[in-house]
Formats: sequence, C-alpha cells, structure tokens
Amino acid sequence: VSSIGQSLAAIVGASNVFEGAGIEERYRVDIMAKYVSTPGFVVRPGSTEEVAAVVKLAAQANLSITPLGGRTGVVGGGTAKDGAIVLSLERMNKVLEVDAASMTMTVEAGATLQATHESAEANGLFMPLDLGARGSATIGGNIATNAGGNRVLRWGMMRDMVLGLEAVLANGSVVSSLTKALKDNAGYNWKHLFIGSEGTLGVITRAVLRLRPLPVSSQTALVAMSSFETATALLRKMEAALGGRLSSFELMWSDFYDFSSEAQLAKRARPLPCGHALYALMESLGSEVAHDADLFAQTLEQAMSEGLASDVVIAQSDRERDNLWAVRDDLTEVLRPLRPLIAYDVSMALGDMPRFREETRAQILERFPQATTLYYGHAGDGNLHLVVGAGTGKDQTTEVDRMVYRVVEKYRGSVSGEHGIGKGKREYIGLTRSAQELALMQAIKTALDPHNLMNPGKVLP
Amino acid sequence: VSSIGQSLAAIVGASNVFEGAGIEERYRVDIMAKYVSTPGFVVRPGSTEEVAAVVKLAAQANLSITPLGGRTGVVGGGTAKDGAIVLSLERMNKVLEVDAASMTMTVEAGATLQATHESAEANGLFMPLDLGARGSATIGGNIATNAGGNRVLRWGMMRDMVLGLEAVLANGSVVSSLTKALKDNAGYNWKHLFIGSEGTLGVITRAVLRLRPLPVSSQTALVAMSSFETATALLRKMEAALGGRLSSFELMWSDFYDFSSEAQLAKRARPLPCGHALYALMESLGSEVAHDADLFAQTLEQAMSEGLASDVVIAQSDRERDNLWAVRDDLTEVLRPLRPLIAYDVSMALGDMPRFREETRAQILERFPQATTLYYGHAGDGNLHLVVGAGTGKDQTTEVDRMVYRVVEKYRGSVSGEHGIGKGKREYIGLTRSAQELALMQAIKTALDPHNLMNPGKVLP
Repeated sequence: VSSIGQSLAAIVGASNVFEGAGIEERYRVDIMAKYVSTPGFVVRPGSTEEVAAVVKLAAQANLSITPLGGRTGVVGGGTAKDGAIVLSLERMNKVLEVDAASMTMTVEAGATLQATHESAEANGLFMPLDLGARGSATIGGNIATNAGGNRVLRWGMMRDMVLGLEAVLANGSVVSSLTKALKDNAGYNWKHLFIGSEGTLGVITRAVLRLRPLPVSSQTALVAMSSFETATALLRKMEAALGGRLSSFELMWSDFYDFSSEAQLAKRARPLPCGHALYALMESLGSEVAHDADLFAQTLEQAMSEGLASDVVIAQSDRERDNLWAVRDDLTEVLRPLRPLIAYDVSMALGDMPRFREETRAQILERFPQATTLYYGHAGDGNLHLVVGAGTGKDQTTEVDRMVYRVVEKYRGSVSGEHGIGKGKREYIGLTRSAQELALMQAIKTALDPHNLMNPGKVLP
Repeated sequence: VSSIGQSLAAIVGASNVFEGAGIEERYRVDIMAKYVSTPGFVVRPGSTEEVAAVVKLAAQANLSITPLGGRTGVVGGGTAKDGAIVLSLERMNKVLEVDAASMTMTVEAGATLQATHESAEANGLFMPLDLGARGSATIGGNIATNAGGNRVLRWGMMRDMVLGLEAVLANGSVVSSLTKALKDNAGYNWKHLFIGSEGTLGVITRAVLRLRPLPVSSQTALVAMSSFETATALLRKMEAALGGRLSSFELMWSDFYDFSSEAQLAKRARPLPCGHALYALMESLGSEVAHDADLFAQTLEQAMSEGLASDVVIAQSDRERDNLWAVRDDLTEVLRPLRPLIAYDVSMALGDMPRFREETRAQILERFPQATTLYYGHAGDGNLHLVVGAGTGKDQTTEVDRMVYRVVEKYRGSVSGEHGIGKGKREYIGLTRSAQELALMQAIKTALDPHNLMNPGKVLP
C-alpha cells in the first residue's frame, strides 16, 4: 500500500480504498466497454466530510478525481485519468428524509433513482424523473449529467427537480444549500452550474428533490401518423386538450418502428401495422381514473376524425401498456445486430427535425449504402435519437459523427440533448457552442478548479 | 457634451445618449423613491451589437454599467453608481418571433411582460409568468431578477421559461444560445448563472421563451381555514385532486386578510367574513370548461366536509374573480396608511412558516407595540411576504430587518425568495448563504467581470 493509499484509508477506512492491481474491472471499464483506463486509486467515502478530506488530499498529491455514480453514463464521463482517483459515491446511498408537508426528499448522491421512486411512493408522492437505468443510475449521476428520460415534456429534466444541493469544490470547501423552498433569489444560482457539469466542477454529495402528488390515473396509446406535420399538430392538440396531463410523447419514424417491432415479433405482436410515416407513444398521468380515460380516448378519436391520427391503439391493461412501451424502450436485443452501432442524442427546434433527418439520412446512405439508420426521440422536448449501424464499421464512427454533427450545427441544435459531453463528444462541442460560450465555460472552470483536478479531460475541448 | 458622450453617441445616435443634467429623473430615482443616484450617462442601444460596443467603450473609460429594464424592481438593482452609465434596454422592446410549432417566442430584453402575454395569446399560446407590474416590467428584467409571481407553483419562475439566452459580458463578448430546444446538455449551463444575477455578470439582450397551450377554463376560489395544518393539507389535496391544474395557492393570514378587506370595504364587500385563521386564494387553469368547474367545486365541497376548509366562495364571473384577487393584489391604497412600511419576501420550507410568523411577530410587537404586521405569501412555493408598518419609523428599518432575517437564518430559509438582493439586502445575504457559497459566487463574479464594471455594488456583500 502506497503512502497515498494509507492516507486515503485513514479517511475512509482501509476496506474502502482499492489501489493498483486491486482495483476491480467495474472501476476501470465503462458499462459499454468503450472507455477504459487504469486509475491509481478507488476510494469510497461515507460522508460529505470524507469526500472533502479526500479532495483536499488529492489536491495536495496533485492527483485528479473522477466522481463515479451508477456507471450508466454512455459518454465516458466516469472514466478516470490513468493513475488518478476514482471517487465512488456507492456508500452514500441513503434517502435521508421524505418531508411530505414540503413535498421534498433529501438524499445522498449515491442513492439510486429507483430508491427515490420507492421512497416517494411509500409516502404517496411521486419522483417524476424516469429512465431505463433507474435501478443503477444514482441521483448524483442524474444531477451531474442533468438526466432527461421520457417525462421531460411535463416535469422537465433532473435540473427541474433539484431544490437544494451540496457539493465539494476542488479546494475542498463544501458548498451546501439544502433548501426545501422552491424560491431562492439570494445571489447567483450556483446549483444550476453544477447540474450538468459532469463532475468537472466538484463532487455532488447531497440534494433536496422536489416531489409531486402521485398520479392515480395513467393512459398509454400508440398512434400512427401520416406526416411530421400531423405529428406536430397532434402533439399540440394533446397538450392543449389534456390540460397539462400529457407526460410523454415519444416519436418514432417508420424506420425505427418497423425495425424494432420486427425484431420483437417472437415476443409480442406488432401493436400497429407498418406502413405509416410516423408513430407516437404517448402517456397521460392524472388524478381522475374514469374521466381521464374518457378524455384521452375521446381526444384521440377526434384526432382520427380530423386526420391527425391514422391509427390508434390504447392500452387496456398494464400488460398492454408494457408491450407498447417495449417497442420504444426494450432495445438491447433489438439493436444487437447493428453493432458496432453509433448512437446520437442531438436536440433542435421541433420544426427542424424532418430536414435534419432527411439530410443526415441521405449523406449517411450515400457514403454507406448498406447502413441502417433509425430515428426516434422525445420530440415534445426537441431531443432526437439516431442510431446508425451495420454497413458502418467502428472505424467510420468519426466520419459519421462529423456528418451528423455538421447538420446539427446547421440547424443550431445541440450535439447533446441528454447524455452529456463526457470524453466522447469533446471534439464536437464547438460545433454547437460558440467560441464565446466555450471561453465563458473555461473561465468558470478555471475559477473553480484552477489546477484542473476535478474530472479532467471531460466536457471542455 | 463630453468626449465619452460623443463616443456613446457615435454608437447609438445622439438622441439616445443623455448626460449629466440632461438625465431625466426616472434614470436617477427608483420607482419607490428609495434609491437615488447621479449617473453620468444614460445610453439606449438599439441592438445587441450596440450594447457590446457600449460595454467595450465603458471598459476603456473605466466606467461601470447598470442595465435598466422597466424600473419595477424594489431592491435598488437598477441604481447606477454616481457618474457611471445607465444602459436602458427600452428601445430593444420587440417580440421578434412566435414559433407556434415549437411553442417558443424570441424577444428582445426590453419587451414588456405584457407584450409577451399578448403576442402569445394572439397565437393561441400562453406565457405563464405573471405579476402586477406586467405593463412595465421587461423580460430582460424578469430574467435578470428571476421573477416569480402567482403561478410559480405550476409553471415555475422566469428561469423555467427561458430556453435560449443572449448576453453581453463585461469584456464586450456576446454569448448567444438562442435555442428553441428544451434539452441541451452540451457543457455548463451558463444561462442559469445569468438568470437572477441582477445585471452583475452581463447585459441580457435577447431570449427564447417557452410557451404553453392557452388554458380555456379558469376557476378561482377564496377559502377560509382554521389552522396552518389544514391549509397545508388543503394545498396537497387540491394539487392531487386537480392533477396538475392548480396554478395558484396564495395564503393570507388573518392579519393580512382582515386589514386588506377592511381597507377595500368602500370598493367591494368582504368576500368571506373575518374571524378565520387563514385564507387561501386559489386558481385552477385547465382545458375542459364544464368538467374543470365541476371538479374544482366538488373538491372544495369535499374539503369542507373533511374540515380542511371552513368556508368557501367560488367566483362565478370575471368580475367576481377580479374582486377575489383584489384582496390579495390591489395593495397600493391598502398599504398606504402603513408607510413608511418595510416589506419582506423571504422563503423557507412550508412547514416552518407558522413558527417563523410567531417568532418574528412576537419580537416585532415586543419592540414596537404599535406596529402592524401582515403576513401573506405564495405558500405553495415556500415564499412568504411580511409587511411591517406604522409604529416603526424609517429609522427602525435596520432593526426590524435584523429581527426578521435572524429568524429566516434560524430556519435556513432565504432572505429573498423573489425580489432579489440588489443594493437593499447585500448586508443580509450572508445570513442565509454560507461563507463558502459567497466565496463561490465571488469567484464567478471575478472570473467574468474582473474589473467589477457590471452593476457594481449589487448582490454580493
């Protein structure tokens, strides 16, 4: 054990420090096996004070720190520098309090998203953020990456659920504002700077989350549409008619829908026939079981009669609902044949999506005629996913990246609507962020972390 | 005309520069006649480029800049240093675009809040932020102060409506991200740093706002309650039962309600009798005219039968609605007898409000037995207003401030939930922001504005 290892052990206990060859694979290789490194130390603090002590020690030893949550990121944000420190929040995993009167929850950064769901529901409350990795993803990671998911349309991103925040800065100081109030206009809102900063400004240790009343009614439908214009009009119609109840509007172009439902045929029947231009999976969450179901069905019926919807299936049971969602979400097996696949999470104005799709698709297929391109996304919030696979090898990733991001640049969108920049998109951030914006971000980074000790090599170019 | 005046005129035109004695009173004295200064220049640029040129010139001349919006701030945030530059956004007052498909609006900073309401409604859309000063308050000022108002419970503060932002930094560079997408996770979200920074980090020039579907149904009720616990329970019941439609829950303690309704008796009958402990004014906005009205009435009826509400009046017409709101909002004449009054906009966890009220009230009345204290607030979002008047003179402001803010500190609330810090609360920000938080804010300020040229003497102590 090195002297640094001993000093770390003195802070967090010997059983919570791993060093060199004693470091397990999960701290060295990311979940997609895409980003690999050889950290010098893994340390698992049990409290904010221990985090602060580790950060101070790291600064003295001139070792950088990479905070690690539930290992569900896809852009290499949790990959440490060789020889540096991985700071895992896995032991700080408690839901500390649910305050039903204030409708808030206080949590440690290492609590899983699912743990917050369960604690909220046990108190008749609701934590709206949801995503497939809920069982492993941690609140600290969700905050550090400003996680999105399928309900951003109604409740916003992780950013919109964080009332209070505590973080340890690069100099070891603890900034803490664990407020339960929705409103605080006393000075700069530093909280929002840390949300989405991917561990490069400090280590998030605790948070106060805003909860909502637990919805009692839930409706889910899959709808086929004849054009992007009808899809947009249907989205606006549903939002207006449901008076705030619409919580998801997941758009799937026919390429995605046909491919995904085809791949799942052994498991489940296709919920709607192929042949339509677009499909939308929509969810409404409300407070009145019978009335909400009637309103949802009537609105969709009206949409059919107005030509906004070409075909509709409404889930009549939890099983049917899960089957509808599976076409959109149960993608691991579906996408396997396309490996090595290239995935995007760009965002842009809703109205620019069709041209973005046409232009990227034409360029990719001209260069790689055998490629498969699948387009889908959250639509309601401007976030579009694109998967490119088969016919493009791993070596072509950079070429496809450039094609796709150039078109995003043209439409003044963002190279990341959801997953963040991490290591993987650093070279492209300048396509959709101006030199002035990047200079501003760098000035903030330098002011808060002058020696570049917090998760170096991420986010900024 | 000085040489600086000439240089300013070369940028914005001679008719848009005022100097020395030629400066009108509205640029020297704030709307409450509380903050007075003698600026050297007033300049009214017509474009972002002109703002940038003015900022660069000011930096060369070592003159500070105070951006000025609609002059509706109450904490002196728009008061320039003597001899320095007031940069008024009044000429940049256009709504540049309403994009109905993306449900966004692009505006110049000097557009009034009311202009955004009208442009949105003309397109069948809704800008949810609302406050009494809507006719003069500008979007730039609303962003710079992160304005709140009566609908934060449902749609959040100004921060939650800003998708894209453009600002001119102290070094004259223009940072611009006028995106229409809800999601952008590419790098630090600098936008949120400028929102609520009160002109101390740069000049906000343009913004893209998120709009919502225009609600078609509206219900308003005034409800009397027997205790704070029943008020909290009623809030939670209404939120849950209305499934997201509850847009306001304005709480009034009996001291406020009795005083306000008494003062308005010449104009309108008291909507509910005095004698109850608390009153709440609530608003629900939805999409179904008949059903929403039934649900609202039935839920309140049920609340009565459960003892959560002691008495209820539901507005049956626009006139009745306006009369109910007047008790809460039409305060200019009501509060006149209390001048010189002292007003607070603190925030805290909902559950701490009763003890905050008891403790501050006891302290104030012990020291100033003739004083009137009125408590009211947005409640749903943790924001509490307190007005203290009569029996406390202007000279006692500091003494009352200290009493009130010490109790806010005890309950770990905020000295400002809504109005900001400006000049008026600088000495108190340290009571509810830690030394570490203030050091972090100062580091950000220094990084972005090393020569302290942007609205100096505001926000930070």
